[in-house]
Amino acid sequence: MIIASSSNPTIKQINRLREKSRARRQDQLFVMEDWKEIRMAIENGYLINQLVMREGALLPKDWLPSSIPISIVKNELFTNLVYRSGTVDVCAIAAAKPHPLSSLQQLKGPACYLVLDQVEKPGNIGAILRTADAAGLAGVIVVDAVSDLYNPNVIRSSVGTLFTVPIALCSLDEALQWLEGSYVLTTQLEGGQPPWEVNLAGPVALVLGTESTGVREPWRKRANQFVKIPMFGQNDSLNVSNTAAILAYEHVRQRTIY
Amino acid sequence: MIIASSSNPTIKQINRLREKSRARRQDQLFVMEDWKEIRMAIENGYLINQLVMREGALLPKDWLPSSIPISIVKNELFTNLVYRSGTVDVCAIAAAKPHPLSSLQQLKGPACYLVLDQVEKPGNIGAILRTADAAGLAGVIVVDAVSDLYNPNVIRSSVGTLFTVPIALCSLDEALQWLEGSYVLTTQLEGGQPPWEVNLAGPVALVLGTESTGVREPWRKRANQFVKIPMFGQNDSLNVSNTAAILAYEHVRQRTIY
Repeated sequence: MIIASSSNPTIKQINRLREKSRARRQDQLFVMEDWKEIRMAIENGYLINQLVMREGALLPKDWLPSSIPISIVKNELFTNLVYRSGTVDVCAIAAAKPHPLSSLQQLKGPACYLVLDQVEKPGNIGAILRTADAAGLAGVIVVDAVSDLYNPNVIRSSVGTLFTVPIALCSLDEALQWLEGSYVLTTQLEGGQPPWEVNLAGPVALVLGTESTGVREPWRKRANQFVKIPMFGQNDSLNVSNTAAILAYEHVRQRTIY
Repeated sequence: MIIASSSNPTIKQINRLREKSRARRQDQLFVMEDWKEIRMAIENGYLINQLVMREGALLPKDWLPSSIPISIVKNELFTNLVYRSGTVDVCAIAAAKPHPLSSLQQLKGPACYLVLDQVEKPGNIGAILRTADAAGLAGVIVVDAVSDLYNPNVIRSSVGTLFTVPIALCSLDEALQWLEGSYVLTTQLEGGQPPWEVNLAGPVALVLGTESTGVREPWRKRANQFVKIPMFGQNDSLNVSNTAAILAYEHVRQRTIY
């Protein structure tokens, strides 16, 4: 049977999960789009409750577990169901993971964690996860999250790396406690050293804050060292995902050559 | 007189310039928001035709030229006029610049140009301009632009650096001709060297393409060397503005320490 009505319970559930972070929190479910992302989620241990396909779309061969229930939706109705309606033929309802700090490996060897202190924009968080995946970081610790991790913009801008990167969600106190004894570095405008003059080879936890106010005071007190990306222009700050990329790859450089 | 009607010619002009790239091209005008951006534009030689302020908003002291005409707009009407309606009390109509290649300095000394080959998303172009300003690059060459430079999302994500960075707009042939004899580097998945193993100290032109297809064939043929940012994850690409940030700051590192 092909779903043709917007009052169908599956359609209503997808719209609700896509639009309301409260619904995602309550149900511990989220929605994602496109085969590539769905495959990355499955291969990294996420449970897919349901696949919803555009009528006429083809199932991928080989990798899709046959146990997942599939619904088919009328073309026009499906188009309203997804963000990238021009290119996407499938979406899925999946179970969120809890992301406790205890799921992360302790900080040792050449490992580098990125710590995001109240970082705001979902698009930046997604781009940072993409960098963390690419740079082979040990993980990302999201402290006092402002938007929820399964926000559609985080998923989309992460291009599936939300599912591949070890991620912990926690409070400020929990993060400080977990990092006790670790080498902690924060970005700081006053008194910071250029990234290539500090030891970023790891083990290291790199703390990034908001673009307007930076990291909070307890991080400044806790930091073993301050880093400042040199600025030569008229503007006084970088986009936070660009800051993360510069520091993550300075870590890669040092990890590689030393 | 306070403007209270959405059919007022100034209001209609602002909405038209904000929403239609064709209108911006025809009139060679654009709209920007907020005192910080307007100040950066004025200080970098942009001509402001008109300021439009929310009723009750205060004029900045000291730096604003008294010759610029000012209109005052009713609170509710102004709120619909700007993107960041919660925090912004002013917008301006300004004259676009032509951005010919001849306005750029020739490539020499420790200079680095970023060349954007058909880069698509306005938000990425804005973030790249912010990086170019911060890293003190010689300029950005936008080749066969997909969205126009004065798109509101470029201006917003550049946080005013659209006005501070030397920018040229040109075709592929013009760019190749202008860079004749220069050291040209492109990103490339096959056969590229890590950024810290190539000479990025300058003079150098760094060519970046789209996230899906990379730079076009003539750039590959023209390149003196290929660079590849090492990837250790499950995903196969970085956000283009993050790629630009990593390479621009590897240039800064080499420029600084050698």
